Amino acid sequence: MTDRVRQILDSYAGESPGVLTSLARLLSHGTLAGTGKLVILPVDQGVEHGPARSFAPNPAGYDPHYHFQLAIEAGCNAYAAPLGFLEAGAARFAGEVPLILKLNNNNSLYSDDDPVSVQTGSVDDALRLGCVAIGYTIYPGSEQSPVMYEQLRSLTEEAKQAGLAVVVWSYPRGSQISAKGETAIDVVAYAAQIAAQMGAHLIKVKLPSAHLEQDAARKVYEAQKIPIETLAERVRHVVQSAFDGRRIVIFSGGGKVDDAQILEQARAIRDGGGFGSIIGRNSFQRPRADAVKLLRAIMDVYKG
Amino acid sequence: MTDRVRQILDSYAGESPGVLTSLARLLSHGTLAGTGKLVILPVDQGVEHGPARSFAPNPAGYDPHYHFQLAIEAGCNAYAAPLGFLEAGAARFAGEVPLILKLNNNNSLYSDDDPVSVQTGSVDDALRLGCVAIGYTIYPGSEQSPVMYEQLRSLTEEAKQAGLAVVVWSYPRGSQISAKGETAIDVVAYAAQIAAQMGAHLIKVKLPSAHLEQDAARKVYEAQKIPIETLAERVRHVVQSAFDGRRIVIFSGGGKVDDAQILEQARAIRDGGGFGSIIGRNSFQRPRADAVKLLRAIMDVYKG
Amino acid sequence: MTDRVRQILDSYAGESPGVLTSLARLLSHGTLAGTGKLVILPVDQGVEHGPARSFAPNPAGYDPHYHFQLAIEAGCNAYAAPLGFLEAGAARFAGEVPLILKLNNNNSLYSDDDPVSVQTGSVDDALRLGCVAIGYTIYPGSEQSPVMYEQLRSLTEEAKQAGLAVVVWSYPRGSQISAKGETAIDVVAYAAQIAAQMGAHLIKVKLPSAHLEQDAARKVYEAQKIPIETLAERVRHVVQSAFDGRRIVIFSGGGKVDDAQILEQARAIRDGGGFGSIIGRNSFQRPRADAVKLLRAIMDVYKG
Amino acid sequence: MTDRVRQILDSYAGESPGVLTSLARLLSHGTLAGTGKLVILPVDQGVEHGPARSFAPNPAGYDPHYHFQLAIEAGCNAYAAPLGFLEAGAARFAGEVPLILKLNNNNSLYSDDDPVSVQTGSVDDALRLGCVAIGYTIYPGSEQSPVMYEQLRSLTEEAKQAGLAVVVWSYPRGSQISAKGETAIDVVAYAAQIAAQMGAHLIKVKLPSAHLEQDAARKVYEAQKIPIETLAERVRHVVQSAFDGRRIVIFSGGGKVDDAQILEQARAIRDGGGFGSIIGRNSFQRPRADAVKLLRAIMDVYKG
Amino acid sequence: MTDRVRQILDSYAGESPGVLTSLARLLSHGTLAGTGKLVILPVDQGVEHGPARSFAPNPAGYDPHYHFQLAIEAGCNAYAAPLGFLEAGAARFAGEVPLILKLNNNNSLYSDDDPVSVQTGSVDDALRLGCVAIGYTIYPGSEQSPVMYEQLRSLTEEAKQAGLAVVVWSYPRGSQISAKGETAIDVVAYAAQIAAQMGAHLIKVKLPSAHLEQDAARKVYEAQKIPIETLAERVRHVVQSAFDGRRIVIFSGGGKVDDAQILEQARAIRDGGGFGSIIGRNSFQRPRADAVKLLRAIMDVYKG
Repeated sequence: MTDRVRQILDSYAGESPGVLTSLARLLSHGTLAGTGKLVILPVDQGVEHGPARSFAPNPAGYDPHYHFQLAIEAGCNAYAAPLGFLEAGAARFAGEVPLILKLNNNNSLYSDDDPVSVQTGSVDDALRLGCVAIGYTIYPGSEQSPVMYEQLRSLTEEAKQAGLAVVVWSYPRGSQISAKGETAIDVVAYAAQIAAQMGAHLIKVKLPSAHLEQDAARKVYEAQKIPIETLAERVRHVVQSAFDGRRIVIFSGGGKVDDAQILEQARAIRDGGGFGSIIGRNSFQRPRADAVKLLRAIMDVYKG
Repeated sequence: MTDRVRQILDSYAGESPGVLTSLARLLSHGTLAGTGKLVILPVDQGVEHGPARSFAPNPAGYDPHYHFQLAIEAGCNAYAAPLGFLEAGAARFAGEVPLILKLNNNNSLYSDDDPVSVQTGSVDDALRLGCVAIGYTIYPGSEQSPVMYEQLRSLTEEAKQAGLAVVVWSYPRGSQISAKGETAIDVVAYAAQIAAQMGAHLIKVKLPSAHLEQDAARKVYEAQKIPIETLAERVRHVVQSAFDGRRIVIFSGGGKVDDAQILEQARAIRDGGGFGSIIGRNSFQRPRADAVKLLRAIMDVYKG
Repeated sequence: MTDRVRQILDSYAGESPGVLTSLARLLSHGTLAGTGKLVILPVDQGVEHGPARSFAPNPAGYDPHYHFQLAIEAGCNAYAAPLGFLEAGAARFAGEVPLILKLNNNNSLYSDDDPVSVQTGSVDDALRLGCVAIGYTIYPGSEQSPVMYEQLRSLTEEAKQAGLAVVVWSYPRGSQISAKGETAIDVVAYAAQIAAQMGAHLIKVKLPSAHLEQDAARKVYEAQKIPIETLAERVRHVVQSAFDGRRIVIFSGGGKVDDAQILEQARAIRDGGGFGSIIGRNSFQRPRADAVKLLRAIMDVYKG
Repeated sequence: MTDRVRQILDSYAGESPGVLTSLARLLSHGTLAGTGKLVILPVDQGVEHGPARSFAPNPAGYDPHYHFQLAIEAGCNAYAAPLGFLEAGAARFAGEVPLILKLNNNNSLYSDDDPVSVQTGSVDDALRLGCVAIGYTIYPGSEQSPVMYEQLRSLTEEAKQAGLAVVVWSYPRGSQISAKGETAIDVVAYAAQIAAQMGAHLIKVKLPSAHLEQDAARKVYEAQKIPIETLAERVRHVVQSAFDGRRIVIFSGGGKVDDAQILEQARAIRDGGGFGSIIGRNSFQRPRADAVKLLRAIMDVYKG
Repeated sequence: MTDRVRQILDSYAGESPGVLTSLARLLSHGTLAGTGKLVILPVDQGVEHGPARSFAPNPAGYDPHYHFQLAIEAGCNAYAAPLGFLEAGAARFAGEVPLILKLNNNNSLYSDDDPVSVQTGSVDDALRLGCVAIGYTIYPGSEQSPVMYEQLRSLTEEAKQAGLAVVVWSYPRGSQISAKGETAIDVVAYAAQIAAQMGAHLIKVKLPSAHLEQDAARKVYEAQKIPIETLAERVRHVVQSAFDGRRIVIFSGGGKVDDAQILEQARAIRDGGGFGSIIGRNSFQRPRADAVKLLRAIMDVYKG
């Protein structure tokens, strides 16, 4: 156990030894073990966007075993996926990489301006599959967000009692938020705060833009001159908004970007005090060797 | 136990011995025992379409015993039906054919553009009746799909704990999907993926057409040149979309077609790597001898 | 135990000895004991239509004891009523007549084109009151039918575990069904099938008219030349639609008709293979002696 | 135990000794002990109408102790109130007056044409506070009435298992009932029947007017010449509608009226066979001495 | 234990020793220990308004430890916050200040004219974190208030069984209440009454204005000449409306005001018989030394 990991765990003082152990396993696995940084492989796009849009660019990804192998080979801290994908490989790859069971999912065969993500797995499933954590998506801003908040609350309580860590995907979305607003710095910071207040151990948000969405917030950002010009500044503000660094915040880039940009984003995350990256489509949608190369390059940034 | 069955069960490594036993029983019964292929007799049309539309063409089918006898005589791998039909014969035909209790049903006395299928049986009912599996229908694309996803999730967890297999009928339907889109290749593949991600052991979908429904999907199918011209190619793509062959996918033809077409469909399913057929109206709506003859001809295709 | 009763119980093979005992008690009580036919007295109109509309024509009926006495004196197989009416006499008349606790009720102080019937009693209440069965109304065709189906499913499971029989009132009603359609032969047969598939032991439907409501059904009735001209033919078709005689189907006449008509209906039910009548308003809304006389005349038809 | 109380309890034969004991305590307390008549003090107006509208006319009523003292001093059979009011005095006045915990309440900060009354206490609360009964309001006629019926059903079952009596406030209200119709004789009689059928031991309704609200009912009232001209006749009809006198029915006068009218109403209740009065605003909104005087005058009518 | 504390606890006679102990701890901690007065630090604005609007004015407040330290240094009776904030410091500051876990929260990424506050913590969480009380917000007047009332009822029952005190934030809000009406004296008094009737031990309301919102109430205020001109008079009326002083009522000033005003408000609360203040934004949004100074000045008013 490195000092840095101990220091991070210290922010979670009060959690049970079981939860602390799960957090320690996440922080002590793979290439970034012990650094306090994380690179996680998430693969829930099969449900979210459909199989062809997700896996046709690199058909190896249709096979659930592929993603376990990719996460292991690249030295990721963890692999996160819905029930089916984990069930199809958890026995074969038992103990080789920490697993995060994504407990809810949305699909695009029906779309709603105020979306809800539906529970598709349980805490008992996570335990049965040997996971270290549960994952759950909330859509702050959706009219249906109360449904997700109540379910997350209940699952979080159950997970903590079972010694599992809780990872919250906090994605603002809804009829009162503009498309641009979904990644606005005020909205992303707000989403991080909500996840933290709900008891999340790890928080995943999108990299924020410099846009300010809410009028009431804009006044404060301007009055207090909160620095949000560079990506690193914005990362810093989000980390600050999640209990001033006392909660692990990791970032996703979202859509497809080129490798130079991804590495630049990783450097901004690092410089802004972020805890790491969650890299889905930019890893499993390219040939395995390329994906491993990119993931290691990202890890090098964090080790740097 | 044949090698092929062992190979298939290997894809379900991690499931409990109870679940593996149920899957093995399905794969080791009837004419196709041990081949890794399945022909299943489903009879839920009495509820779905009403008794006269279902059974008047062959009035023997009003009697619940008839379908047990048909499935046994034809050597089907299993017989699937709602609670009432199974209750009315499970004692009389105990142990003669594996049973699948269909846990939800829809009827056509009320129709909704965004339909829901309602729970009409339980896991305890399935155990009480000696079943090897539960069956459950989801309508991906329906505004009410969250209700079914949550119920399927919960029933799946309960079934697995009881050592039962889980068969999911995945039928896209809803206000955002066109009639043609319900069997579009992109939509059917998506439906198979959703069922697999939700933890289904067997997935039943309709035979897909070459139509592409969703714009975002069409771009990928065209860019990646996914072969979907022949039925066998489309079957192959659906099987690939259900964890690249690691999940059993079976197909129904839907409406009434002539026997030549049915056998041609079976050959396409076989050639595309599908695991078999589920044949309802095309079997029980004709005289018993004819039905047995057709079912055996289909099985011959799969044994071929 | 007569052969006929044994024969009927044989259709319920697989049910627990407790359930079989309850069915046997229904079939072995009163004037029609052992004949395989039933005449049941139902009194839920107090809730459904209000007290004055129900009981003012024969004010003795305001008193809950009256209906116990009427059912006993007339030799009915059973008396069915909501919680309050049974609670008010079950101790006083304990063991004198089999009781059916009607577990849900609707009232006419609020009316909805897509109605729901609300639970007003429980399986535990039925046990506490010494009942042999629960009764439950579904409105197939109502937009709210899923609420009733799910509740019936759950109560049926609980009742069977407790050794109680399950009687389902299956009354098509809803915004997509015309007034005439509520008693159309295709719709009534469909309603009987739904109740049977949901696991009902006894099914109560209205006497069907020769009207055909659904286009898809009409084509089949015409193509298959299903005989529905006489009432006896229609009764036969409904009984066939409820598992070809393997489920007990009884009929109500609905509104007020004259005695000659009631007896004619009973003869049609008998000739069509129906299992009996449920006679509410036509019995308790007339003086007791008249009611007993009519009920016995009906029983004579069935004994004939 | 007087003969009259034994006679009333006889109507509840079949209830557990615990419930009979609770009913006996209600009937054997205060000035009217043993007479079979009841005068109950209800104070839920603080929630229903707000504190100032309820208590400003006699500010002593802001204090929860006041109502206990008033009920005790006046010799009421029981005091009924929501959770907070009972919690604030149940220890101080333990054993001095039977208590009824009102388990649901509505307030006037939000009003709905189809109102619902919300649960604010539990059966366990009633037991903890030493109550003899629970109270519950239903609004027959409201689109939301199913919510209340289901909750009442469940609470009634739980209360009876705990040996508590069940008092139902049955107040017709909803978008399909006119303001005048809320106290129409047909509607009030119907509301009493519904409460009785749901298993209520005591039923509280408003004093009915001679108005007839529902067309279907009016025909019967006219055809059968049901006498509803005088208040005593209407009381008699309501009592008849609640199981012909086998259920305790008590009446409230509603709004503020002068003392002569209140006493006249009491005489009509007595003459019509009603079981007593529930007097809220007309008692606690006047000085204590006046209230005690009025309540005793009412009791004198019933003792007469 | 001072006489004043004993006197207050006497109003809660009937509560369990566990609840009385929790109340005693609240009343016996900090600068105002034993005086019967309370100053509480609440920090739920991070969720309610977002992190920047809450903490940017004094960035130390992003850190959850800060608020513990502020409450301890200033000698507050308690610190109230949502799950995340308490989890992040409860171990580090165990036993140093009584904690109130705020069990529900609303955020401003979605706003509704009839808002609901969503459960984000549980009674078990409160016990796990060593809290003395739960906190819960209701919005009387919201169409969604029934959801909150039912949840509060259930949580209150559970909390009392666990020996925790119950603090209710009662904030009228909804489509039938004007913006001005949310702090109208009639509406605030009504909100206090509702909280008291629901079983709250401590009630938090906003300082009321002299505005009268509801017509039915205005008539009574005018007829009865209820004094509401000065703030102290209005405080007195609200305290009277919460069981005439038998329930602890504390007040928040709401938006930002200058220090002179805050102290003047405190004097009015004291003079009107209020039990204290809950000071959020006016304390944690200024530098720590200033905040401590202000809080102590407020406490001096109450000690005075």
